[in-house]
Amino acid sequence: MTQLKVGIVGVAGYTGAELVRLVSAHPKLSLQWVSGASTAGKTLGEVLPSVRGVTGLAELVIEEFRPEDVETLKQRLDVVFTALPHAESARVGALFFRAGVQVVDLSADYRFEDIATYESWYGEHPEKGLLSQARYGLVEWHRDELQHARLIAAPGCYVTASVLALGPLLDQKLIETSPIIVDAKSGVSGAGRKAKPSTHLPETAEGIRPYSVAGAHRHTPEIEQELSRIAGQAIKIVFTPQLAPFSRGILACCYATGRPGVSAQACRDAARAAYGQGLVAVLDDGQLPDTLWVRGSARAMVSYAYDARTNLVLAFSVLDNLSKGASAQAIQALNASRGWPDETGLPLLAQFP
Amino acid sequence: MTQLKVGIVGVAGYTGAELVRLVSAHPKLSLQWVSGASTAGKTLGEVLPSVRGVTGLAELVIEEFRPEDVETLKQRLDVVFTALPHAESARVGALFFRAGVQVVDLSADYRFEDIATYESWYGEHPEKGLLSQARYGLVEWHRDELQHARLIAAPGCYVTASVLALGPLLDQKLIETSPIIVDAKSGVSGAGRKAKPSTHLPETAEGIRPYSVAGAHRHTPEIEQELSRIAGQAIKIVFTPQLAPFSRGILACCYATGRPGVSAQACRDAARAAYGQGLVAVLDDGQLPDTLWVRGSARAMVSYAYDARTNLVLAFSVLDNLSKGASAQAIQALNASRGWPDETGLPLLAQFP
Amino acid sequence: MTQLKVGIVGVAGYTGAELVRLVSAHPKLSLQWVSGASTAGKTLGEVLPSVRGVTGLAELVIEEFRPEDVETLKQRLDVVFTALPHAESARVGALFFRAGVQVVDLSADYRFEDIATYESWYGEHPEKGLLSQARYGLVEWHRDELQHARLIAAPGCYVTASVLALGPLLDQKLIETSPIIVDAKSGVSGAGRKAKPSTHLPETAEGIRPYSVAGAHRHTPEIEQELSRIAGQAIKIVFTPQLAPFSRGILACCYATGRPGVSAQACRDAARAAYGQGLVAVLDDGQLPDTLWVRGSARAMVSYAYDARTNLVLAFSVLDNLSKGASAQAIQALNASRGWPDETGLPLLAQFP
Amino acid sequence: MTQLKVGIVGVAGYTGAELVRLVSAHPKLSLQWVSGASTAGKTLGEVLPSVRGVTGLAELVIEEFRPEDVETLKQRLDVVFTALPHAESARVGALFFRAGVQVVDLSADYRFEDIATYESWYGEHPEKGLLSQARYGLVEWHRDELQHARLIAAPGCYVTASVLALGPLLDQKLIETSPIIVDAKSGVSGAGRKAKPSTHLPETAEGIRPYSVAGAHRHTPEIEQELSRIAGQAIKIVFTPQLAPFSRGILACCYATGRPGVSAQACRDAARAAYGQGLVAVLDDGQLPDTLWVRGSARAMVSYAYDARTNLVLAFSVLDNLSKGASAQAIQALNASRGWPDETGLPLLAQFP
Repeated sequence: MTQLKVGIVGVAGYTGAELVRLVSAHPKLSLQWVSGASTAGKTLGEVLPSVRGVTGLAELVIEEFRPEDVETLKQRLDVVFTALPHAESARVGALFFRAGVQVVDLSADYRFEDIATYESWYGEHPEKGLLSQARYGLVEWHRDELQHARLIAAPGCYVTASVLALGPLLDQKLIETSPIIVDAKSGVSGAGRKAKPSTHLPETAEGIRPYSVAGAHRHTPEIEQELSRIAGQAIKIVFTPQLAPFSRGILACCYATGRPGVSAQACRDAARAAYGQGLVAVLDDGQLPDTLWVRGSARAMVSYAYDARTNLVLAFSVLDNLSKGASAQAIQALNASRGWPDETGLPLLAQFP
Repeated sequence: MTQLKVGIVGVAGYTGAELVRLVSAHPKLSLQWVSGASTAGKTLGEVLPSVRGVTGLAELVIEEFRPEDVETLKQRLDVVFTALPHAESARVGALFFRAGVQVVDLSADYRFEDIATYESWYGEHPEKGLLSQARYGLVEWHRDELQHARLIAAPGCYVTASVLALGPLLDQKLIETSPIIVDAKSGVSGAGRKAKPSTHLPETAEGIRPYSVAGAHRHTPEIEQELSRIAGQAIKIVFTPQLAPFSRGILACCYATGRPGVSAQACRDAARAAYGQGLVAVLDDGQLPDTLWVRGSARAMVSYAYDARTNLVLAFSVLDNLSKGASAQAIQALNASRGWPDETGLPLLAQFP
Repeated sequence: MTQLKVGIVGVAGYTGAELVRLVSAHPKLSLQWVSGASTAGKTLGEVLPSVRGVTGLAELVIEEFRPEDVETLKQRLDVVFTALPHAESARVGALFFRAGVQVVDLSADYRFEDIATYESWYGEHPEKGLLSQARYGLVEWHRDELQHARLIAAPGCYVTASVLALGPLLDQKLIETSPIIVDAKSGVSGAGRKAKPSTHLPETAEGIRPYSVAGAHRHTPEIEQELSRIAGQAIKIVFTPQLAPFSRGILACCYATGRPGVSAQACRDAARAAYGQGLVAVLDDGQLPDTLWVRGSARAMVSYAYDARTNLVLAFSVLDNLSKGASAQAIQALNASRGWPDETGLPLLAQFP
Repeated sequence: MTQLKVGIVGVAGYTGAELVRLVSAHPKLSLQWVSGASTAGKTLGEVLPSVRGVTGLAELVIEEFRPEDVETLKQRLDVVFTALPHAESARVGALFFRAGVQVVDLSADYRFEDIATYESWYGEHPEKGLLSQARYGLVEWHRDELQHARLIAAPGCYVTASVLALGPLLDQKLIETSPIIVDAKSGVSGAGRKAKPSTHLPETAEGIRPYSVAGAHRHTPEIEQELSRIAGQAIKIVFTPQLAPFSRGILACCYATGRPGVSAQACRDAARAAYGQGLVAVLDDGQLPDTLWVRGSARAMVSYAYDARTNLVLAFSVLDNLSKGASAQAIQALNASRGWPDETGLPLLAQFP
């Protein structure tokens, strides 16, 4: 079996590490090249302790990336995953894309249709001209555009959780478009690998707290973009991210007013129609999801309830922020671009427990 | 200093254990008698490992309670805390109350004004006649009624979190009364001391999950009762409890539509007016609370934000479900009934970290 | 590719659940039949929430096992994993073994050479006659005997951790044989799936404690059997198991007196000679392992230090108690019995983080 | 009641924060002055979120400390707790001590009898001349010297755990002096408040790992000093610190060879004779301690077992590294220096759970 030759830029971060895990187990992908800025010159084993002792990975040397290297790298690579800070990711991705290498970017850089929205949140975009060529990598809602895509923007973790839960309800017009509330709890790996006071174990491990509320979180406009696309009209949300004391997982509890005739069953039906037998499981009546059940898996779970007394629809989703929320989803989008089944090479089952 | 002689029925549960901690450090209370059903005959040290080695507590023998014992116990005790399963708590509390012993009940039995509401959630009430004599022990909102109260119903943990956050907003008419959403995350001690599959560490420790959503949780009608009292009109809420992977703490994120002129500052002003320098801290602009900051403390913290884009008010609260959410609040209510300052004998500072 | 047809008895426990995860991802194995006692009649999705939504697994019905079913099951199955309480596991395994189905048993029933030792710890053995035919499934130390083995006893989790760390030192006579201390910390999944007061999250999540110390733990004789085999003389150990507040992982810190000329390097050399490029990584000088680095992986890590001041050798090992310590090891032994490379179909990389 | 006027230097660290909690609840102490280097100018509420809303604490301004301020501070303060990095702590403490203010130092600076030992681990000592005037603040073993002490060195957390467990055995000559092993697991708050990669939640929360083994940890010589004093001969230990995934607590498992006639009961008797009814509980036969049971408490627990097969004595201890292992112990030593009962003003009961 011929394998695609894969490179990862930004391998030392958490989404990079998760890509290493997933790519190395994927039968159609072969990891050829890894790059990092501050870690260049080290072996992968030095930087990712989980690969120590694995022949072929542990000794792989992390290379520095210089723009001029693209000329030789394009001979060695079919696809590059870029997992860098924003702006930097756009620049590096653009070099590979122009050299003919397929790019899957895990930063926010290629996710926005509207350059003004991007720039109001992230600052100047260094590659505005490429935005129109990028495809948003949420396969469940952008499958057709992703065919043969050469520049894929892997979605944000909170965005994935929100859109998987709410998308079918807006698509099928089961809920009113205002107000929509997303109350979401994330494991701490979502904050990245850099140690910060806010992620220091003693101040994070045995409590829970909200942060960046009331429109202050960067995923707000991205959630709104995707929900608006599905709804066919401008959607505004209130998004309340919270830091929960574990490593991986997002639970989104979403609230919206029901439209006439809505029911939990109607919501489930809409979700089953949207997601089929794929990587999003729609839980049965009365089942509520736990982030533990999808940890390390490429799958998400959604569940619905309806509160007749207040006419509110409750939409729940769980996923692993580093896997279905980032790296597994990036590979799922690559799979879709290549015409392979979504789940190709991806872990379906979480470790339980 | 003369001390009140205190008894605890149901000492082996978590709220009982917390009462032991708090009563034994309270300068005006003296623990005289502890009772438990399945633990009768054991020493306190056998049942509560944290008291091992503490002279005067460790060797205290847990007694069985028989109704006829009230006659002698009324000589030995000034106040009894009852922390038993519902119905049973009502029965035992009634015996002490009729014998002239002050009763602070930590079950749901004396919390409801409307007997029909109680019975639809908990089954037949064995002491209907006493409901009218009970006082609801949320001191911040019922201070006057609690003066000289002889039968106090300590509020539920989720109820306290919800009402402390939302009460000032309804009182000052800063929010619309519908829809109101309470998305609340609790530590696992809220589920009680009995081991269950749902609290088994491997299936609970590294994830988060909702349960009893869409009106299915027993605290729903109690929250509604208290919010309705404050609002002066019937309030309905959607309440979404979630099990978070730590022992102690509740974070409530509440959402409501703003009324004209509302602002985060107006919410803070209302809360400061309601809570003064007491056991509820109102956080400053931009500060968001963490359950860790009040763990083990008798204090709660509330914080407010306003999302102008959607006209939604966000009200946050944190407390320790066993302390301000249960046992410390029970003592605070006792303090109020005796005319002592709220914080008398109570721990103000959480362990940090 | 022809696949072995696999059955699992005791699928609802944690080692059963881990077998489902691993077998379903193994290219040479095909899960055909699952059985459970109290869960019979339910679907796998009802009992293992992590499989919900996975076509072909979620709807699989858990069957009751009756002895007379062996006659038909032997047509359907090539290999059966038995993961039942002791004695019961021996009985069920014997039925399949006699019917010609290969058996990998995850209980303690077929692990002991000496029936008296077994019976002093576990009670009467229902299938004494089969002990001599069983092969101990620690591939690193029993590879030759496992070739073509038809009845395999998968080792205990603590035993694996202890023997992987100490085996090379005893084999190469780098340490004295007395005293040997194993101070081992296990995640709570090692206690099984049944909820118990000792595994109730609030009393287990934010502390650490020893249990069954000073020879009281059942893994003591099993560790001693295996170390004695390697040493060629009777070894006695002190084993101190501890419950650590996470789900998966064992860290063993082993202490022994050095023999003349010992050094950390000599220990590493011995371990590298023993383990080669296989599933046990020998960490470099100065590297100390973390259970997190092998979580969910079929691999273990070992590391060595030498304290010249006291002439004590320190041997460390980490593994995932449910994976390399149980189910992945069971499959590794199956792989070895079939002549396949150890790592066939097994996850090498932990999720990191 | 007249209260001692207290100052804290280094209030923003974890031992400083714990001092704030304990001093503010102590009836004979009154917090008058707090100082910090990088936090000077902020309020205590900004730096310690747990004090927000507490009148009299939250608004307290953290002051910069300049040497010349001692002249005025000596009028305002009776006792100063210094909780600074080593060398710096010695310098600041010396200024106060010479000005006549009682000093309790929580750094390592005044703990060592032998200046050479100190300097080989910590570098040059800036106040060598004061070492002979310092008293080691482990009250249980230095009560007499602490009477009227004006310069107290509060012991290290691991040291306290080790000495409380092993002291009685060496004192009563129940164990051989070699080899002695201390295998100790600490919560992450022991690493201090500064965020580091090694304390970043995702890489620390769901695993356990050793660090600084085989004599590399700075507490090794301090443990050896104290054990040697008690034994009356030079003691060498192997000390294996481990980072466990919770905030507070140390579990030490100590191993030593028994001398003739030793038994677990003899060990318990020795410990009971040493510790009486004080802050160290000696657990009964068969009881093993959990760090959870002393969390936040000023108390420690010890427990003993004897393994006759290997003639090894097992000595266990648990304590809260920030409380009995640091700040509560510092206050206990202050209490002793003033002739007050050890437990004066200190929390005896952990929160349970």
